[in-house]
Amino acid sequence: MSSMEKINRFRDERDWRKFHNEKDLAISISLEASELLELFQWKTSEEVKKNSIERIKEELADVLIYSYMMADNLDFDIDEIISEKLKKNNNKYPIELSKGNNKKYNEL
Amino acid sequence: MSSMEKINRFRDERDWRKFHNEKDLAISISLEASELLELFQWKTSEEVKKNSIERIKEELADVLIYSYMMADNLDFDIDEIISEKLKKNNNKYPIELSKGNNKKYNEL
Amino acid sequence: MSSMEKINRFRDERDWRKFHNEKDLAISISLEASELLELFQWKTSEEVKKNSIERIKEELADVLIYSYMMADNLDFDIDEIISEKLKKNNNKYPIELSKGNNKKYNEL
Amino acid sequence: MSSMEKINRFRDERDWRKFHNEKDLAISISLEASELLELFQWKTSEEVKKNSIERIKEELADVLIYSYMMADNLDFDIDEIISEKLKKNNNKYPIELSKGNNKKYNEL
Repeated sequence: MSSMEKINRFRDERDWRKFHNEKDLAISISLEASELLELFQWKTSEEVKKNSIERIKEELADVLIYSYMMADNLDFDIDEIISEKLKKNNNKYPIELSKGNNKKYNEL
Repeated sequence: MSSMEKINRFRDERDWRKFHNEKDLAISISLEASELLELFQWKTSEEVKKNSIERIKEELADVLIYSYMMADNLDFDIDEIISEKLKKNNNKYPIELSKGNNKKYNEL
Repeated sequence: MSSMEKINRFRDERDWRKFHNEKDLAISISLEASELLELFQWKTSEEVKKNSIERIKEELADVLIYSYMMADNLDFDIDEIISEKLKKNNNKYPIELSKGNNKKYNEL
Repeated sequence: MSSMEKINRFRDERDWRKFHNEKDLAISISLEASELLELFQWKTSEEVKKNSIERIKEELADVLIYSYMMADNLDFDIDEIISEKLKKNNNKYPIELSKGNNKKYNEL
């Protein structure tokens, strides 16, 4: 069973789809991203990877799960929207200009 | 090519992996989630779906792309961490208790 | 004693200022804002005001406390930066154009 | 005129209070906190303080302005909620246990 099918089964078994309007899903994605970020508060990446790898796994999964739910609500194909966005980023960040530097596209 | 391979090619062509420590990636995931949420600010889900579906697609893709990068940095398998988290949620939210209500697990 | 003095006393008594670099304070402000937002997840403003007014008070205070800490770190005067920003917003949102509508300044 | 009076005058002149339900204000506070955090993305505190001090001032002011709006909506007194929260934090983080360490209260 695909990840998307598992996620949908999870929410449909609980009859939760009725709560999942897109505005509240956007809030949820943002909150889960904050819980992930919270692991890194006052710490370095190295400290967190050493001590909290299982927590990272869980919080990152939560971000993904809510993101998949929103994609499903809106009939987006995950691989397709990633691929389309990478194409746009390719145009915004030409390899020759952005190689090895982290400037924003409007500063290139 | 899988989404993960496309994403890694994108950042490796630009030699960007050196910037992608996990703390900054966690910040990026949170920021992209905020850009997604911003589309819904002062609006209903319906208004946003009608007027900004392409923008949702792009911002959601950005959340996914940075999430995939963090997963790759840490050698997580996307489908595996989703599947494991759903199992945990299954235990926290038993179907019979949570069906049709949106209470948090500690309020069930 | 002013709010700023109370906040500084709190952190100085604990010798915490050494942890409070501005990047981590920016993370903290964002996390506290998320905890405030979390109260509204899946709910309407009315439900939350009715049931969680004390929680709103606490989470909003946390946003303010970390914001004051950052201001103090950078020698900003709270009233002054608010006043300057309102002047900028006044120019971005002229009363005659923005009265009663919630368009962003670049859509006016 | 106090900061609160200036902020209220700004929104009342534009007849914006009708948009400012607390759920959307909570979203706005979170978004402004993200814009502040964005300044620090991929950078150290030192780099940002050197190059973007005016931007920090503006984004921090935005966080404060929306926070003040929510306080006003709910008839909270800013100094009072800060003072009450600091008292709670005093109990959660006794000086003798937390001095010089950044552990969370449930890890003390």
